[in-house]
Amino acid sequence: MQKEGLLIVISAPSGAGKTTLCNGLVKRFPGLKESVSYTTRDPRQGEQDGVDYHFVSTEQFKKMVSENGFAEWAEVHGNLYGTAISVLEQARRDGVDILLDIDCQGARILKNHSIKGTFIFVMPPSIPELRRRLESRSSDSVDVIERRIARAVEEIPEARWYDYIVINDQLEEAQERLAAIVTAAQIKTENIWEQISKMFDI
Amino acid sequence: MQKEGLLIVISAPSGAGKTTLCNGLVKRFPGLKESVSYTTRDPRQGEQDGVDYHFVSTEQFKKMVSENGFAEWAEVHGNLYGTAISVLEQARRDGVDILLDIDCQGARILKNHSIKGTFIFVMPPSIPELRRRLESRSSDSVDVIERRIARAVEEIPEARWYDYIVINDQLEEAQERLAAIVTAAQIKTENIWEQISKMFDI
Repeated sequence: MQKEGLLIVISAPSGAGKTTLCNGLVKRFPGLKESVSYTTRDPRQGEQDGVDYHFVSTEQFKKMVSENGFAEWAEVHGNLYGTAISVLEQARRDGVDILLDIDCQGARILKNHSIKGTFIFVMPPSIPELRRRLESRSSDSVDVIERRIARAVEEIPEARWYDYIVINDQLEEAQERLAAIVTAAQIKTENIWEQISKMFDI
Repeated sequence: MQKEGLLIVISAPSGAGKTTLCNGLVKRFPGLKESVSYTTRDPRQGEQDGVDYHFVSTEQFKKMVSENGFAEWAEVHGNLYGTAISVLEQARRDGVDILLDIDCQGARILKNHSIKGTFIFVMPPSIPELRRRLESRSSDSVDVIERRIARAVEEIPEARWYDYIVINDQLEEAQERLAAIVTAAQIKTENIWEQISKMFDI
């Protein structure tokens, strides 16, 4: 039996810096892949089914929704996109490590399905600092910023049921802490025992 | 309530490089302290009770042994030395992070007492490599080396119930992995929640 793939699940309030941190993580761990989503949109030139996306009909997609097959799904510009639980389970069996950037609601669905994973919540250092960061982006209207902050205040208590909390105060330090979590996950006994037992014939 | 102290428990077969790794770890994490042992020997000049050792009479020590108060204890040159479970629990309450270098038997006693801790097993990359390392020390007789190897072969399967396994193939990489485990332990939700809930008033 080959090594099982790891699932690294990351959630964060908008503005906490999750995207930057995730990009840094993938650079540091080239074996860490994003999961392949399902979509109802047509493949573009060069896109491969099962590699870029799992391309399905709206009917197929809605059937999967009704069977609770997605950890999360959304409609974007009239097309449906979703993260299928079965894809995560297949990656685990195939030994592929997956990085999944997903909101709290989606993460909780995975937890409720007893999907094995390392659940990480990225925190802003404080609400005033989150506000400062959202305002300095200057791309969002005051209304949008207020909504994001209200949402963050709601989401932060959700961190409690995650395995780890990374406070993004200084980006580099937060990046180190996030990398440490992934490194530690790789050498958890449950994730490495198969390899050890072969090495030592036990 | 202040932050609880972490307990980092490290075991390894003789020759796996545990002492070097532990020294490196303490350098990297100055807040990580060795636990204060009990001993029946007399204090030396300048040694303070409760700081260098807990100095007790042989009678007191034996009483603690009979009450299963030690995770491990041993007689060295006619004096008794022991790691008391109560000392580890007190450090946790005091918010002191402890590094405990202890054999498998002692570690298992802690597990059986449901002592919260991060249990790490340091592995040699292989038995032949372990033999090579023990032989290159040149301080040990052939008999001693054979006994150490036989002991290692017995101990390695114990790794299964530890939380993490660090294979000491390349010292620097093993050191990084060990540090990652400690960093991750520091930001486990259960260890950081008190601080978070204060920061965000939740």
